[in-house]
Amino acid sequence: MKKNYLDDIQDTLLLGAGPSGVAPSTYRAISTNIIGHLDPYFIEIMEQIKSGLRELMGTQNEVTVPLSGTGSSGMEAAFVNTVERGDKVLILENGVFGNRMEDVASRLGAVVTKEEFEWGTPVRPERVRELLAQDHYKIVAIVHAETSTGVRNPVEEIGQIVHDAGSLYLVDAVTSLGGIPVEVDKWHADICYSGTQKCLSCPPGAAPITFSPAAMEVVANRSCKVPNWYLDMNMLTKYWGGSKRVYHHTAPISMMFALYQAIYNIQAEGLENVYARHMRVHKRLVAGLEKLGLKMLVEPQYRLPELNTVLIPEGIDEAKLRAQLLDKYHIEVSGGLGALAGKVIRIGLMGYNATDENVDRLLAAMKEIMADMAASSAA
Amino acid sequence: MKKNYLDDIQDTLLLGAGPSGVAPSTYRAISTNIIGHLDPYFIEIMEQIKSGLRELMGTQNEVTVPLSGTGSSGMEAAFVNTVERGDKVLILENGVFGNRMEDVASRLGAVVTKEEFEWGTPVRPERVRELLAQDHYKIVAIVHAETSTGVRNPVEEIGQIVHDAGSLYLVDAVTSLGGIPVEVDKWHADICYSGTQKCLSCPPGAAPITFSPAAMEVVANRSCKVPNWYLDMNMLTKYWGGSKRVYHHTAPISMMFALYQAIYNIQAEGLENVYARHMRVHKRLVAGLEKLGLKMLVEPQYRLPELNTVLIPEGIDEAKLRAQLLDKYHIEVSGGLGALAGKVIRIGLMGYNATDENVDRLLAAMKEIMADMAASSAA
Repeated sequence: MKKNYLDDIQDTLLLGAGPSGVAPSTYRAISTNIIGHLDPYFIEIMEQIKSGLRELMGTQNEVTVPLSGTGSSGMEAAFVNTVERGDKVLILENGVFGNRMEDVASRLGAVVTKEEFEWGTPVRPERVRELLAQDHYKIVAIVHAETSTGVRNPVEEIGQIVHDAGSLYLVDAVTSLGGIPVEVDKWHADICYSGTQKCLSCPPGAAPITFSPAAMEVVANRSCKVPNWYLDMNMLTKYWGGSKRVYHHTAPISMMFALYQAIYNIQAEGLENVYARHMRVHKRLVAGLEKLGLKMLVEPQYRLPELNTVLIPEGIDEAKLRAQLLDKYHIEVSGGLGALAGKVIRIGLMGYNATDENVDRLLAAMKEIMADMAASSAA
Repeated sequence: MKKNYLDDIQDTLLLGAGPSGVAPSTYRAISTNIIGHLDPYFIEIMEQIKSGLRELMGTQNEVTVPLSGTGSSGMEAAFVNTVERGDKVLILENGVFGNRMEDVASRLGAVVTKEEFEWGTPVRPERVRELLAQDHYKIVAIVHAETSTGVRNPVEEIGQIVHDAGSLYLVDAVTSLGGIPVEVDKWHADICYSGTQKCLSCPPGAAPITFSPAAMEVVANRSCKVPNWYLDMNMLTKYWGGSKRVYHHTAPISMMFALYQAIYNIQAEGLENVYARHMRVHKRLVAGLEKLGLKMLVEPQYRLPELNTVLIPEGIDEAKLRAQLLDKYHIEVSGGLGALAGKVIRIGLMGYNATDENVDRLLAAMKEIMADMAASSAA
């Protein structure tokens, strides 16, 4: 009998930047017996997912669907459907995912202006106002919750400015959806996408996305077809559409079962309760970290409760800390990216894993490891 | 308590054009507890998937990975990585998926020549030879197993011709992989992709793809970046690569567990045994259908064992036949596409569901329904 490597896999408490932990009910859902992608039962699941996503995303947009790819396919779809060669795009960057937006949009022929803000600080609305007074952009793009830094950007205030300037407003909500309020309509967001593996507590593999009527008008009136058949919203809208469905591709059925259940779980707990829980465990974590003598990268008012970036003082090897957490305590946390590599760890408290017990388990483990490290460096 | 629509879902015997049935071991695999996408255990699963796919696809290509999207994302990746604006592409079309290739390639700026062959008949190698004598094409593309008609195209013979002409050879193996031999290296195929939800008996949601060294040289030496960040093989190769991995996107972990197990199951049975089983049940089906007075669309030597296209005689309403199979017998078969809509049904005998028992259950159900139909039309 050939070795089965799945047998080796250890249970791990996922407290990193994603994927997050998955509820037992969602594991059951993902292993529901497959049915056809044109089966009436599957059509019903599709309808329920669409209406659930509208509630979670705070939108009335008819075009609100999960794409058949991970969160990164959401970023790709957001730009490839709306950008044409030569279009001006303003990207408000304060982390890795803002930089990725520049790469994605440039490849499609956009003329990108990237405005950089210091990592760990938010995008400043007054600067956006100045930029939009100087030039007109077809699209202004921002990341709501920067996974690389733990910063929450003031997307509502900026949304009003972008709306007044007559640009399309594109918001990345990968790490926010299901953890902090996402209010697409209130923000005047025209395109907003997310992933499933963060605060939705669903495995990675689908990307919720929504397009406002104004954004869909741009997509429908392009001078050429969307240069991406797989992510063409004109076709996807017909596949996911109401009475008359047109076959496009075979949806990832099992992932859709899981997403349905993940949304169901959030609705059953109640959105407001879910947000309150994320905030409560975040405060518990920060208080505990401060007791350990650790400081947060981000000022309190811009912190994401679901993604906590912790400064690691000189003398502590953060890679060793993370390795010991994983190997000895079976807890995963994430390291820093880009300029923050080696200087921070990132602790995710997302969805199903955002509990007091998990916070306490992590803090206890960190305390032991840090005491060991102090003892061995003193020795 | 809110209604949970997953509770409504009926067990269905999937004998359509896909998705196919999934083995219990693969359902267990897909609900394995999630680990991080950078976890050493996950890296091991990735390595096993790559080597397993090489065996199944008959190739030594280092670049042999699953994409994080359904089979259609494989087609997208095949063209978007290799096509640049103005490149000549020859598409050998004898079904829906050949037509889709034309759409995908055209959107990317390719100058497409589509050579049509009658649906239900194979692409003719001598015609390909003529076309390649008249003009040079950067890429020649073909579908190995046309899911819309049930035809197996002579990809090996055509591969030699394309190779001699110095074009890149692009083969769609969505419905063939795991059902009939796929021999990428022997065929001189430069790019070959598949889906998971056909003969691999894995849920939809990933697309195995392989690029020859010659194809990767074209990708590496493009005049501009691949206009699709999500499917850029230069970056994906580094993410899936050997010793030094560069983060790209979060892989669909659960789907990867399922794909690992699906490959494991095929290897445990033995590739040759799997092909023999598909052929045996196909012959049993055809014999049974002929007893019911039904004829096949495709000539015997070009038939796919895993996808059987059956002509439905006048007087039998094929939509009603399929509806009764689904509602009363919980068996899904597929209707015809395009010009074949209303004229045929398509019976899939793929992977886990390719068994004598399933063939007999389907034939018994069809016999009853057709007898009822005959009785009620005589009344």
